[in-house]
Amino acid sequence: MSIALYLEDLALGQTYHSRTYEVTAEEIKDFASKYDPQPFHLDEEAAKDSFFGGLAASGWLTASITMRLLVDGGLPVAGGLIGAGCELTWTRPTRPGDVLQVESEVIEIAAMPTRPTSGLVTVRSRVRNQDKKVVQIFVARLLVPRKTI
Amino acid sequence: MSIALYLEDLALGQTYHSRTYEVTAEEIKDFASKYDPQPFHLDEEAAKDSFFGGLAASGWLTASITMRLLVDGGLPVAGGLIGAGCELTWTRPTRPGDVLQVESEVIEIAAMPTRPTSGLVTVRSRVRNQDKKVVQIFVARLLVPRKTI
Repeated sequence: MSIALYLEDLALGQTYHSRTYEVTAEEIKDFASKYDPQPFHLDEEAAKDSFFGGLAASGWLTASITMRLLVDGGLPVAGGLIGAGCELTWTRPTRPGDVLQVESEVIEIAAMPTRPTSGLVTVRSRVRNQDKKVVQIFVARLLVPRKTI
Repeated sequence: MSIALYLEDLALGQTYHSRTYEVTAEEIKDFASKYDPQPFHLDEEAAKDSFFGGLAASGWLTASITMRLLVDGGLPVAGGLIGAGCELTWTRPTRPGDVLQVESEVIEIAAMPTRPTSGLVTVRSRVRNQDKKVVQIFVARLLVPRKTI
Protein backbone atom coordinates (compact mmCIF):
# COMPACT_ATOMS: atom_id res chain seq x y z
CA MET A 1 0.00 0.00 0.00
CA SER A 2 1.62 3.23 -1.11
CA ILE A 3 -0.39 5.62 1.08
CA ALA A 4 -1.01 5.15 4.80
CA LEU A 5 -3.41 7.60 6.35
CA TYR A 6 -2.97 8.60 10.01
CA LEU A 7 -5.44 10.57 12.09
CA GLU A 8 -3.53 13.77 11.34
CA ASP A 9 -3.93 13.19 7.59
CA LEU A 10 -7.71 13.05 7.67
CA ALA A 11 -10.12 15.96 7.28
CA LEU A 12 -13.89 16.20 7.00
CA GLY A 13 -15.11 15.85 3.45
CA GLN A 14 -12.11 13.91 2.14
CA THR A 15 -13.26 11.33 -0.37
CA TYR A 16 -11.66 8.07 -1.48
CA HIS A 17 -12.56 5.65 -4.27
CA SER A 18 -12.00 1.90 -4.44
CA ARG A 19 -11.27 -0.31 -7.38
CA THR A 20 -14.21 -2.21 -8.90
CA TYR A 21 -15.43 -5.77 -8.17
CA GLU A 22 -17.63 -7.90 -10.42
CA VAL A 23 -20.15 -10.04 -8.58
CA THR A 24 -20.97 -13.39 -10.19
CA ALA A 25 -23.98 -15.68 -9.73
CA GLU A 26 -21.53 -18.34 -8.56
CA GLU A 27 -20.19 -16.16 -5.75
CA ILE A 28 -23.72 -15.10 -4.75
CA LYS A 29 -24.78 -18.75 -4.40
CA ASP A 30 -21.54 -19.90 -2.78
CA PHE A 31 -21.68 -17.20 -0.10
CA ALA A 32 -25.38 -17.84 0.51
CA SER A 33 -24.88 -21.56 0.91
CA LYS A 34 -22.45 -20.86 3.74
CA TYR A 35 -23.97 -17.85 5.48
CA ASP A 36 -27.42 -16.93 4.21
CA PRO A 37 -29.11 -20.02 2.74
CA GLN A 38 -32.40 -18.48 1.67
CA PRO A 39 -33.99 -19.42 -1.68
CA PHE A 40 -33.72 -15.91 -3.18
CA HIS A 41 -29.92 -15.99 -2.69
CA LEU A 42 -29.43 -19.60 -3.84
CA ASP A 43 -31.52 -20.31 -6.89
CA GLU A 44 -32.61 -18.25 -9.90
CA GLU A 45 -35.96 -20.04 -10.27
CA ALA A 46 -36.90 -19.81 -6.60
CA ALA A 47 -35.86 -16.15 -6.56
CA LYS A 48 -38.27 -15.24 -9.37
CA ASP A 49 -41.31 -15.56 -7.10
CA SER A 50 -39.65 -13.88 -4.12
CA PHE A 51 -39.54 -10.32 -2.81
CA PHE A 52 -36.45 -9.77 -4.97
CA GLY A 53 -37.97 -10.98 -8.26
CA GLY A 54 -34.69 -12.66 -9.24
CA LEU A 55 -31.40 -13.85 -7.82
CA ALA A 56 -30.02 -11.29 -5.34
CA ALA A 57 -26.85 -11.28 -3.27
CA SER A 58 -27.06 -11.59 0.48
CA GLY A 59 -26.62 -8.16 2.01
CA TRP A 60 -23.72 -9.74 3.93
CA LEU A 61 -21.97 -10.55 0.68
CA THR A 62 -22.39 -6.95 -0.45
CA ALA A 63 -21.01 -5.82 2.92
CA SER A 64 -18.10 -8.28 2.71
CA ILE A 65 -17.20 -7.20 -0.83
CA THR A 66 -17.32 -3.59 0.36
CA MET A 67 -14.80 -4.49 3.05
CA ARG A 68 -12.57 -6.19 0.48
CA LEU A 69 -12.65 -3.08 -1.69
CA LEU A 70 -11.81 -0.82 1.27
CA VAL A 71 -8.94 -3.11 2.36
CA ASP A 72 -7.59 -3.23 -1.22
CA GLY A 73 -6.75 0.45 -1.16
CA GLY A 74 -10.22 2.00 -1.07
CA LEU A 75 -9.50 3.50 2.34
CA PRO A 76 -5.77 3.24 3.11
CA VAL A 77 -5.79 3.76 6.88
CA ALA A 78 -2.45 3.16 8.62
CA GLY A 79 -2.39 -0.08 10.58
CA GLY A 80 -5.47 -1.47 8.86
CA LEU A 81 -9.21 -1.06 8.95
CA ILE A 82 -10.45 -1.78 12.46
CA GLY A 83 -14.12 -1.04 12.97
CA ALA A 84 -15.84 -0.40 16.28
CA GLY A 85 -19.24 -0.59 14.67
CA CYS A 86 -21.31 0.50 11.71
CA GLU A 87 -24.68 1.14 10.20
CA LEU A 88 -25.67 -0.58 6.99
CA THR A 89 -28.55 0.24 4.68
CA TRP A 90 -29.29 -1.90 1.66
CA THR A 91 -30.96 0.40 -0.83
CA ARG A 92 -31.36 -2.09 -3.69
CA PRO A 93 -30.32 -5.69 -4.39
CA THR A 94 -26.89 -6.60 -5.71
CA ARG A 95 -27.43 -8.76 -8.81
CA PRO A 96 -25.28 -11.24 -10.75
CA GLY A 97 -23.00 -9.29 -13.09
CA ASP A 98 -23.07 -6.12 -11.00
CA VAL A 99 -19.77 -4.27 -10.89
CA LEU A 100 -19.43 -2.59 -7.51
CA GLN A 101 -17.30 0.38 -6.51
CA VAL A 102 -17.09 2.18 -3.16
CA GLU A 103 -16.86 5.92 -2.56
CA SER A 104 -15.98 6.82 1.03
CA GLU A 105 -16.24 10.22 2.70
CA VAL A 106 -14.88 11.27 6.09
CA ILE A 107 -17.88 12.68 8.01
CA GLU A 108 -16.67 12.83 11.64
CA ILE A 109 -13.33 12.85 13.46
CA ALA A 110 -13.29 12.42 17.22
CA ALA A 111 -10.73 11.94 19.97
CA MET A 112 -10.91 8.75 22.05
CA PRO A 113 -10.56 9.72 25.71
CA THR A 114 -9.70 6.16 26.71
CA ARG A 115 -7.23 5.60 23.88
CA PRO A 116 -4.91 8.58 23.33
CA THR A 117 -2.93 6.85 20.56
CA SER A 118 -5.94 6.72 18.23
CA GLY A 119 -8.95 8.63 17.06
CA LEU A 120 -12.40 7.50 16.00
CA VAL A 121 -13.17 8.42 12.40
CA THR A 122 -16.63 8.03 10.92
CA VAL A 123 -16.70 7.28 7.22
CA ARG A 124 -19.77 7.08 4.99
CA SER A 125 -19.25 4.65 2.12
CA ARG A 126 -21.64 4.51 -0.79
CA VAL A 127 -21.48 1.33 -2.82
CA ARG A 128 -22.61 1.79 -6.41
CA ASN A 129 -23.21 -0.64 -9.24
CA GLN A 130 -22.24 -0.17 -12.90
CA ASP A 131 -25.35 2.00 -13.43
CA LYS A 132 -24.19 4.33 -10.61
CA LYS A 133 -27.15 3.19 -8.51
CA VAL A 134 -26.41 2.92 -4.80
CA VAL A 135 -26.84 -0.64 -3.50
CA GLN A 136 -25.54 -0.03 0.03
CA ILE A 137 -24.78 2.85 2.37
CA PHE A 138 -22.29 1.95 5.04
CA VAL A 139 -21.41 4.32 7.89
CA ALA A 140 -18.48 2.96 9.88
CA ARG A 141 -16.64 4.07 13.00
CA LEU A 142 -12.96 3.26 12.55
CA LEU A 143 -10.02 3.33 14.91
CA VAL A 144 -7.31 5.40 13.25
CA PRO A 145 -3.84 5.71 14.83
CA ARG A 146 -2.13 9.02 15.46
CA LYS A 147 1.19 9.57 13.76
CA THR A 148 2.63 11.24 16.86
CA ILE A 149 1.53 11.03 20.46
CA MET B 1 -38.90 -24.75 9.57
CA SER B 2 -41.69 -25.68 11.95
CA ILE B 3 -42.64 -22.17 13.08
CA ALA B 4 -43.24 -19.24 10.73
CA LEU B 5 -43.74 -15.91 12.42
CA TYR B 6 -45.96 -13.30 10.80
CA LEU B 7 -46.29 -9.67 11.86
CA GLU B 8 -49.37 -10.55 13.94
CA ASP B 9 -47.38 -13.15 15.90
CA LEU B 10 -44.75 -10.69 17.10
CA ALA B 11 -44.84 -8.63 20.29
CA LEU B 12 -42.31 -6.36 21.98
CA GLY B 13 -39.97 -8.23 24.28
CA GLN B 14 -40.31 -11.63 22.60
CA THR B 15 -36.97 -13.42 22.65
CA TYR B 16 -35.58 -16.14 20.39
CA HIS B 17 -32.43 -18.25 20.65
CA SER B 18 -30.38 -19.77 17.85
CA ARG B 19 -28.39 -22.97 17.75
CA THR B 20 -24.63 -22.71 18.34
CA TYR B 21 -21.79 -22.40 15.79
CA GLU B 22 -18.14 -23.19 16.40
CA VAL B 23 -15.70 -20.86 14.66
CA THR B 24 -12.43 -22.43 13.49
CA ALA B 25 -9.08 -20.82 12.66
CA GLU B 26 -9.48 -22.30 9.17
CA GLU B 27 -12.80 -20.51 8.58
CA ILE B 28 -11.42 -17.25 10.01
CA LYS B 29 -8.50 -17.35 7.56
CA ASP B 30 -10.55 -18.57 4.60
CA PHE B 31 -13.14 -15.80 5.01
CA ALA B 32 -10.42 -13.18 5.51
CA SER B 33 -8.52 -14.26 2.40
CA LYS B 34 -11.66 -13.58 0.35
CA TYR B 35 -13.15 -10.52 2.01
CA ASP B 36 -10.94 -8.97 4.68
CA PRO B 37 -7.29 -9.81 3.95
CA GLN B 38 -5.64 -8.04 6.87
CA PRO B 39 -2.75 -9.70 8.76
CA PHE B 40 -4.63 -9.98 12.08
CA HIS B 41 -7.35 -12.07 10.37
CA LEU B 42 -4.98 -14.21 8.29
CA ASP B 43 -2.00 -15.28 10.33
CA GLU B 44 -1.49 -16.16 14.02
CA GLU B 45 2.07 -14.79 14.14
CA ALA B 46 1.26 -11.48 12.47
CA ALA B 47 -1.81 -11.11 14.70
CA LYS B 48 0.26 -11.32 17.90
CA ASP B 49 1.71 -7.86 17.41
CA SER B 50 -1.55 -6.30 16.23
CA PHE B 51 -4.37 -4.44 17.97
CA PHE B 52 -6.06 -7.82 18.54
CA GLY B 53 -3.07 -9.55 20.17
CA GLY B 54 -3.87 -12.80 18.38
CA LEU B 55 -5.87 -14.20 15.49
CA ALA B 56 -9.34 -12.61 15.37
CA ALA B 57 -12.25 -13.14 13.00
CA SER B 58 -13.25 -10.39 10.61
CA GLY B 59 -16.29 -8.63 12.00
CA TRP B 60 -17.94 -9.53 8.69
CA LEU B 61 -17.46 -13.21 9.41
CA THR B 62 -19.07 -12.75 12.82
CA ALA B 63 -21.93 -10.89 11.13
CA SER B 64 -22.26 -13.58 8.45
CA ILE B 65 -22.30 -16.40 11.01
CA THR B 66 -24.95 -14.46 12.94
CA MET B 67 -27.06 -14.39 9.78
CA ARG B 68 -26.58 -18.13 9.29
CA LEU B 69 -27.74 -18.78 12.87
CA LEU B 70 -30.80 -16.56 12.41
CA VAL B 71 -31.70 -18.24 9.09
CA ASP B 72 -31.26 -21.69 10.65
CA GLY B 73 -34.21 -21.17 12.97
CA GLY B 74 -32.86 -18.47 15.26
CA LEU B 75 -35.52 -16.05 14.04
CA PRO B 76 -38.17 -17.95 12.07
CA VAL B 77 -39.84 -15.09 10.20
CA ALA B 78 -42.35 -16.14 7.53
CA GLY B 79 -41.02 -15.67 4.01
CA GLY B 80 -37.42 -15.34 5.15
CA LEU B 81 -35.18 -12.76 6.73
CA ILE B 82 -35.13 -9.64 4.56
CA GLY B 83 -33.28 -6.74 6.11
CA ALA B 84 -33.71 -3.08 5.20
CA GLY B 85 -30.69 -2.12 7.24
CA CYS B 86 -28.92 -2.63 10.53
CA GLU B 87 -26.48 -1.38 13.10
CA LEU B 88 -23.55 -3.54 14.14
CA THR B 89 -21.28 -3.11 17.13
CA TRP B 90 -18.33 -5.41 17.67
CA THR B 91 -17.77 -5.49 21.41
CA ARG B 92 -14.87 -7.98 21.48
CA PRO B 93 -13.06 -10.16 18.93
CA THR B 94 -14.33 -13.55 17.81
CA ARG B 95 -11.47 -16.04 18.33
CA PRO B 96 -10.66 -19.50 16.92
CA GLY B 97 -12.61 -22.08 18.90
CA ASP B 98 -15.34 -19.65 19.97
CA VAL B 99 -18.82 -21.16 20.04
CA LEU B 100 -21.33 -18.48 19.11
CA GLN B 101 -25.04 -18.28 19.88
CA VAL B 102 -27.53 -15.54 19.10
CA GLU B 103 -30.29 -14.20 21.34
CA SER B 104 -32.75 -11.93 19.55
CA GLU B 105 -35.33 -9.63 21.08
CA VAL B 106 -38.15 -7.77 19.32
CA ILE B 107 -37.71 -4.10 20.25
CA GLU B 108 -39.91 -2.22 17.76
CA ILE B 109 -42.86 -3.03 15.52
CA ALA B 110 -43.96 -0.48 12.94
CA ALA B 111 -46.37 -0.27 10.04
CA MET B 112 -45.00 0.44 6.58
CA PRO B 113 -47.16 3.12 4.96
CA THR B 114 -45.83 2.30 1.50
CA ARG B 115 -46.14 -1.47 1.88
CA PRO B 116 -49.42 -2.51 3.52
CA THR B 117 -48.70 -6.24 3.23
CA SER B 118 -45.71 -6.03 5.60
CA GLY B 119 -44.44 -4.41 8.77
CA LEU B 120 -41.00 -3.29 9.81
CA VAL B 121 -39.78 -5.13 12.89
CA THR B 122 -36.63 -4.09 14.73
CA VAL B 123 -34.78 -6.92 16.42
CA ARG B 124 -31.76 -6.60 18.72
CA SER B 125 -29.53 -9.67 18.49
CA ARG B 126 -26.76 -10.27 20.99
CA VAL B 127 -24.11 -12.72 19.85
CA ARG B 128 -22.34 -14.43 22.74
CA ASN B 129 -19.38 -16.78 22.90
CA GLN B 130 -19.03 -19.89 25.08
CA ASP B 131 -18.12 -17.69 28.07
CA LYS B 132 -21.40 -15.76 27.63
CA LYS B 133 -19.39 -12.67 26.63
CA VAL B 134 -21.06 -10.55 23.96
CA VAL B 135 -18.96 -10.33 20.77
CA GLN B 136 -21.49 -8.46 18.63
CA ILE B 137 -24.68 -6.47 19.03
CA PHE B 138 -26.78 -6.39 15.91
CA VAL B 139 -29.90 -4.25 15.59
CA ALA B 140 -31.76 -5.06 12.38
CA ARG B 141 -34.82 -3.69 10.66
CA LEU B 142 -36.66 -6.59 9.04
CA LEU B 143 -39.56 -6.75 6.62
CA VAL B 144 -42.14 -9.11 8.13
CA PRO B 145 -45.26 -10.08 6.17
CA ARG B 146 -48.77 -9.80 7.57
CA LYS B 147 -50.78 -13.00 7.80
CA THR B 148 -53.95 -11.26 6.65
CA ILE B 149 -54.36 -8.07 4.71
